[in-house]
Amino acid sequence: MIAQTPPMGWNSWDCYGASVDEATVRQNADYMAAHLKAYGWDTIVVDIQWYQRTADSYAYEPFATLTMDGYGRLTPAENRFPSAKDGKGFQPLADYVHGLGLKFGIHIMRGMPRLAAHYRLPVQNADINCAEIANPNSICTWNPDMYGLRADLPEAKAYYDSIFALYAQWGVDFVKVDDIAREYPHCKRELEILSAACRGCGRDIVLSLSPGPAPLAYAEHLKQHSNMWRITDDFWDDWELLKAMFERAAAWCIHSGAGHWPDADMLPVGAMRQCDLPDSTTRFTQAEQTTMLTLWCIMRSPLMIGGEMTKFDDFTLRLLTNRAVLDILTASHCAHPLYTTEDKAAWIAPRKDGTGSYLALFNLADTTAVVVQSLADLDLASVSSVTELWTDETVKITASIAADLPPHGAKLYLLRR
Amino acid sequence: MIAQTPPMGWNSWDCYGASVDEATVRQNADYMAAHLKAYGWDTIVVDIQWYQRTADSYAYEPFATLTMDGYGRLTPAENRFPSAKDGKGFQPLADYVHGLGLKFGIHIMRGMPRLAAHYRLPVQNADINCAEIANPNSICTWNPDMYGLRADLPEAKAYYDSIFALYAQWGVDFVKVDDIAREYPHCKRELEILSAACRGCGRDIVLSLSPGPAPLAYAEHLKQHSNMWRITDDFWDDWELLKAMFERAAAWCIHSGAGHWPDADMLPVGAMRQCDLPDSTTRFTQAEQTTMLTLWCIMRSPLMIGGEMTKFDDFTLRLLTNRAVLDILTASHCAHPLYTTEDKAAWIAPRKDGTGSYLALFNLADTTAVVVQSLADLDLASVSSVTELWTDETVKITASIAADLPPHGAKLYLLRR
Amino acid sequence: MIAQTPPMGWNSWDCYGASVDEATVRQNADYMAAHLKAYGWDTIVVDIQWYQRTADSYAYEPFATLTMDGYGRLTPAENRFPSAKDGKGFQPLADYVHGLGLKFGIHIMRGMPRLAAHYRLPVQNADINCAEIANPNSICTWNPDMYGLRADLPEAKAYYDSIFALYAQWGVDFVKVDDIAREYPHCKRELEILSAACRGCGRDIVLSLSPGPAPLAYAEHLKQHSNMWRITDDFWDDWELLKAMFERAAAWCIHSGAGHWPDADMLPVGAMRQCDLPDSTTRFTQAEQTTMLTLWCIMRSPLMIGGEMTKFDDFTLRLLTNRAVLDILTASHCAHPLYTTEDKAAWIAPRKDGTGSYLALFNLADTTAVVVQSLADLDLASVSSVTELWTDETVKITASIAADLPPHGAKLYLLRR
Amino acid sequence: MIAQTPPMGWNSWDCYGASVDEATVRQNADYMAAHLKAYGWDTIVVDIQWYQRTADSYAYEPFATLTMDGYGRLTPAENRFPSAKDGKGFQPLADYVHGLGLKFGIHIMRGMPRLAAHYRLPVQNADINCAEIANPNSICTWNPDMYGLRADLPEAKAYYDSIFALYAQWGVDFVKVDDIAREYPHCKRELEILSAACRGCGRDIVLSLSPGPAPLAYAEHLKQHSNMWRITDDFWDDWELLKAMFERAAAWCIHSGAGHWPDADMLPVGAMRQCDLPDSTTRFTQAEQTTMLTLWCIMRSPLMIGGEMTKFDDFTLRLLTNRAVLDILTASHCAHPLYTTEDKAAWIAPRKDGTGSYLALFNLADTTAVVVQSLADLDLASVSSVTELWTDETVKITASIAADLPPHGAKLYLLRR
Repeated sequence: MIAQTPPMGWNSWDCYGASVDEATVRQNADYMAAHLKAYGWDTIVVDIQWYQRTADSYAYEPFATLTMDGYGRLTPAENRFPSAKDGKGFQPLADYVHGLGLKFGIHIMRGMPRLAAHYRLPVQNADINCAEIANPNSICTWNPDMYGLRADLPEAKAYYDSIFALYAQWGVDFVKVDDIAREYPHCKRELEILSAACRGCGRDIVLSLSPGPAPLAYAEHLKQHSNMWRITDDFWDDWELLKAMFERAAAWCIHSGAGHWPDADMLPVGAMRQCDLPDSTTRFTQAEQTTMLTLWCIMRSPLMIGGEMTKFDDFTLRLLTNRAVLDILTASHCAHPLYTTEDKAAWIAPRKDGTGSYLALFNLADTTAVVVQSLADLDLASVSSVTELWTDETVKITASIAADLPPHGAKLYLLRR
Repeated sequence: MIAQTPPMGWNSWDCYGASVDEATVRQNADYMAAHLKAYGWDTIVVDIQWYQRTADSYAYEPFATLTMDGYGRLTPAENRFPSAKDGKGFQPLADYVHGLGLKFGIHIMRGMPRLAAHYRLPVQNADINCAEIANPNSICTWNPDMYGLRADLPEAKAYYDSIFALYAQWGVDFVKVDDIAREYPHCKRELEILSAACRGCGRDIVLSLSPGPAPLAYAEHLKQHSNMWRITDDFWDDWELLKAMFERAAAWCIHSGAGHWPDADMLPVGAMRQCDLPDSTTRFTQAEQTTMLTLWCIMRSPLMIGGEMTKFDDFTLRLLTNRAVLDILTASHCAHPLYTTEDKAAWIAPRKDGTGSYLALFNLADTTAVVVQSLADLDLASVSSVTELWTDETVKITASIAADLPPHGAKLYLLRR
Repeated sequence: MIAQTPPMGWNSWDCYGASVDEATVRQNADYMAAHLKAYGWDTIVVDIQWYQRTADSYAYEPFATLTMDGYGRLTPAENRFPSAKDGKGFQPLADYVHGLGLKFGIHIMRGMPRLAAHYRLPVQNADINCAEIANPNSICTWNPDMYGLRADLPEAKAYYDSIFALYAQWGVDFVKVDDIAREYPHCKRELEILSAACRGCGRDIVLSLSPGPAPLAYAEHLKQHSNMWRITDDFWDDWELLKAMFERAAAWCIHSGAGHWPDADMLPVGAMRQCDLPDSTTRFTQAEQTTMLTLWCIMRSPLMIGGEMTKFDDFTLRLLTNRAVLDILTASHCAHPLYTTEDKAAWIAPRKDGTGSYLALFNLADTTAVVVQSLADLDLASVSSVTELWTDETVKITASIAADLPPHGAKLYLLRR
Repeated sequence: MIAQTPPMGWNSWDCYGASVDEATVRQNADYMAAHLKAYGWDTIVVDIQWYQRTADSYAYEPFATLTMDGYGRLTPAENRFPSAKDGKGFQPLADYVHGLGLKFGIHIMRGMPRLAAHYRLPVQNADINCAEIANPNSICTWNPDMYGLRADLPEAKAYYDSIFALYAQWGVDFVKVDDIAREYPHCKRELEILSAACRGCGRDIVLSLSPGPAPLAYAEHLKQHSNMWRITDDFWDDWELLKAMFERAAAWCIHSGAGHWPDADMLPVGAMRQCDLPDSTTRFTQAEQTTMLTLWCIMRSPLMIGGEMTKFDDFTLRLLTNRAVLDILTASHCAHPLYTTEDKAAWIAPRKDGTGSYLALFNLADTTAVVVQSLADLDLASVSSVTELWTDETVKITASIAADLPPHGAKLYLLRR
């Protein structure tokens, strides 16, 4: 099964926006292989606009010329991805990433390039042209490049088949599809044909949907047709966004399971916004980063690093390589919040092997606070030992656990039965 | 702690509406003590209008005369509850129930009798009269008897103190407060003072809130100020209502825990509507009743029998006395649905003792169906044996569990690690 | 026909709230007869709570004792209306007002006194008691005294028949019914039986409905069942409320006509709030008062003076006795706004006799401004002379009329054909 | 002033959809000049898609090739409008229409052709190209051809200047702009620059906005920036649509005046849908057509004939050439409904010259009915004679006028003072 546990990797957006290039991708892949792979991190994702020669920031350019082949399929801009020359596409870069023992992912927009329709380009292996299946009224509200497909036409799936055939040929392992996760109900059918094309392409490709918030009412549809989907709009290094995630995580936690993962979005850690502000680093405090990782792990969100890995400091690297914490992604199940208030929150997650439960305590207030959890209220059968996992400290067992927390901080415990 | 596990008992409404009398209560208490107490059933609740001499059906009578004492506190109508004579209130009946090893509960409406305010009766142990703290604009939309209190006034709590003092004196163990659970936000403060009065009355009294649906947005407030609260409007023996409960159960399951229980309402089983239609029995099929008990147990809803127990047939008694099924209420935690669709649903709940998990499979369709659950998708560490709990049959372990189900039917499995 | 032109009178609310007394009513009636009657002012209205001995401010008292007869019909509190003694009700006061050549009006609330229902008082000339036709769930949101009737019961009209019979006997000419004009759709049927009782009582009584805003969607129902109805919530001496009236006047103007008048509420002029603040006068500037009268006249709203008339200064008296301005109420028809913007507004109204049209120009800005109206844009056949009616000045005819206006000021022109 | 009275003309849509051609336009212009011009009809309008060679029905073709010049300005398809050859555009056809003593109008869509932006064509007389001012996210929901402009950019108006310069050069007198009247608030600014371009082009061009319903909240903006605007979605020969117009006419009537006219849309009379169903004629009964003309005239809507004029039968021609009825468009003002109910309606409109008022009585029921209007209720000064204008019959003056009407029928009276 694809994505039996939550995917873990790196994505170029938080650092490079629309402008990432091949050298950067290779450097980050090298770093991941050397420093993070041993902890479960294994996927490298090239985000949006890799097909636009002129992209150089977080902005989108109306009516930009996009590189595409004769079937209206986008191809990497060779000035940014030199190995793509001679029609090789992302295959050389994917090969390189695979050679490091990692997986290779790309970002795409729902639909086809607008000019593919206006030019009436043929669809590969199909007796139609792009104008016949493009929907001139289906556009993205925030990106000017594409037309959605007329998903009601049987012929429309041929275009998605043609692009996933190309991605399979390149060796793509992960596709993040944008302009789709919150576009219910009008894009429901389009997701179905896209998903079918992905699953029928002959290669195991993790299907990730953006942007959020995906609508909770379509949870079962998302579980059936994708492997992960965004539960929020873009997440950045801003405490209010992190605080708001607690409510969303609570709403979505029951839909988390093998093969289908509510996605709290990328982790804005370390060096950020390199294309605009090369000296910029995350605005999250260390306490906030600990809170973020604690929540993402106990809710079993996919983990996608947003920062430039080659610039990681010791704190950031330690944050992302705590085996006892990362174990939660694979060892726990049935997580849910005990409560969520303005000031504090708590989550619990039993271990699948029956040896105990994880408990996370969060201080959501702007001041230091002691967050206390009565063991009786935890509704557990028994507790024989308690360890705080970020510090590996043993906690003496009394009637309750009291976490002394900095503003926006968290502790994470393993309570053994 | 009060209500450490979900309360289990009997309530007079489904059979007797506003008209239950003392003899009926005693007979049902006797039956419970003899046949159900050994399985955990232990609470007898007298529902609405016990203070109205003329109540004889499910209807409410505008401007009826209600029996009350000189402090505006309702007292049992002596023509219906003879042991209440000489100002003894429910104490003799509570004593009787306690003598059977059971607990005694009553229903009340939020607020005070309208006439207590119009008559300006004094409030017990307080230097105010009822007119000073009644809110002439706070009335119930479906019952004509009461005015809510002006909860913003510090003096208002004195009235709730006075009634809970009386209930403590009578020996009441369970109070179901009506016209409050869905009355957010306007009755939020009134719930707080009522809850404080209950918890400060000197006796452990389970606080149950009606009617539903309580608003999900106030989950933490409900958890803090009550022991159980209704998640739906009145539930009756109608498949559409039962089917709709799956969605509500999914929304509320993360808020279930020691001391605070989302309540799916009474179980309409056996003889029903005795005050209107003495020959009436539940319209649920046996399959539907099995589905109902399975869902209520795996979501850990309180269980309140709605039927006339003395008329139970074998099926109904068996349904309510399956130890392996009822064990789920105390042995499981962290339950949640795996999925809920138009046609089928599945729930999982780990055992607190780490020895395995419960799995419930439901056929929501109107035809027989085989509901299949892949073990790999269950995200468990290991499975060593599988037993179906309604039949106590051992299931051979293969890659999946296939439940052959009648229309609206369910199976319930224990998967041991 | 009743109310063939918009009613003109005085109402006690703006000055005396719930506390007006007989002496004050007589003094104001005397003043109107002496100073205003010649200009069309002819109605004296006693507003709310005349049946409550303890009323002394603008506040309502929960659970107050109300004076009523044995049929649950409210009667004047004799401590406030001495002539009502010996069961004479308002008849002596109405006689006095009639003796001055004026009409007498009272305010009532929809429904019956709550205690009439709780006491089960008999309904006059009907074989029912009040409890049988009162609706315990129909209460006013802002006044604690009454229950609405169960208007779906054929018997309910008997109560309204009984009170209008009493008012006819007293000699009442005008009844302002409160808690009804904006209570659509739930009180639609109750208005119908109340209106039928009014029209069938044997005396011509103008039926006025409050409070506003009445819903525009029920305009035809209001026209059919009443003579005037409030188009706003309570109007006071606050510029923002006056400015907002332009939008409401525009929405309602097409529903103005013989017998049915959209009502912009009382005129807060002169001495105000005498029961709370005896030295208080209107907070409107003279310009704002001119704007108010201009708008009320050109839209043909009923005119009800809110101030204490005996304290009128010269300006206020002049404002209310400009014959040329007040003529518009009877001489014009088919008025409508030419435009309404943030800064200015203009209205036009043809004279019924075909001799010309009225034009009002308003400066809604907070600074002085010249509001210009092109004659060509007026869409008139011809203009032979122009007079400003507040000043009686002749305006020289050019291509446009330019009104030099103070902040919140207005001018009013008669353009003769 | 432009459009001092409501425009009257013919439009090709109801008969020819997107497919009208030059021969048809000339034939209808000839007919109008011969038979209708004497009654005030004077404008010939070519509706949508005159720039698409392949248009042949009411359907729109995605990604169709549109004829345009080097500045991205649409030009007539020469296969359909042969006189447009050699870059002459609509000038020869406009000349022809002018030669008949008539005015010439065209339809346009808001924005520019999509391909003008994708091709980055230069904007005439401006230092920008189309891609710089087109908005890739501003598309029409029902037509695939255009991008709206980035109206916030100062440069954007240059494109609208360029097209109105062309229309002025061609001799266009009337422009119907589509995809704009109901596109508030997002197209508010775009309407402002389009309107400024129209008014600054050096030629008097009536500006008409579609489609409806325009939002009532923007009435003043519409009055300021256009000469007429649609108050409904497309109107066709369907009684439910005609009945619904009464409510819309009531809501908009106060905004009717010299230069700015709420537009009830084209008149579906005579031969219709010629491009699809050559034998089709209007589905309206004669009574319904009389009702339609009566309402359109008394509300002073623009009148645009939708049928193929050369096929008019006697009834249709008579309907459109009743001088006494059509006079209302120029002789009346301040019209408004007296009432509008499910079954009937009445309107009144004073004559500007003071000699009387028009009264229209409508039977909206599906059965014959007598609609009675009391003269006293009309609020008029005096009535000396009454004439029914469709029949030219004198009506005897009594206390009321009683119109004996067929289902969906109307009568129209002149009441002289």
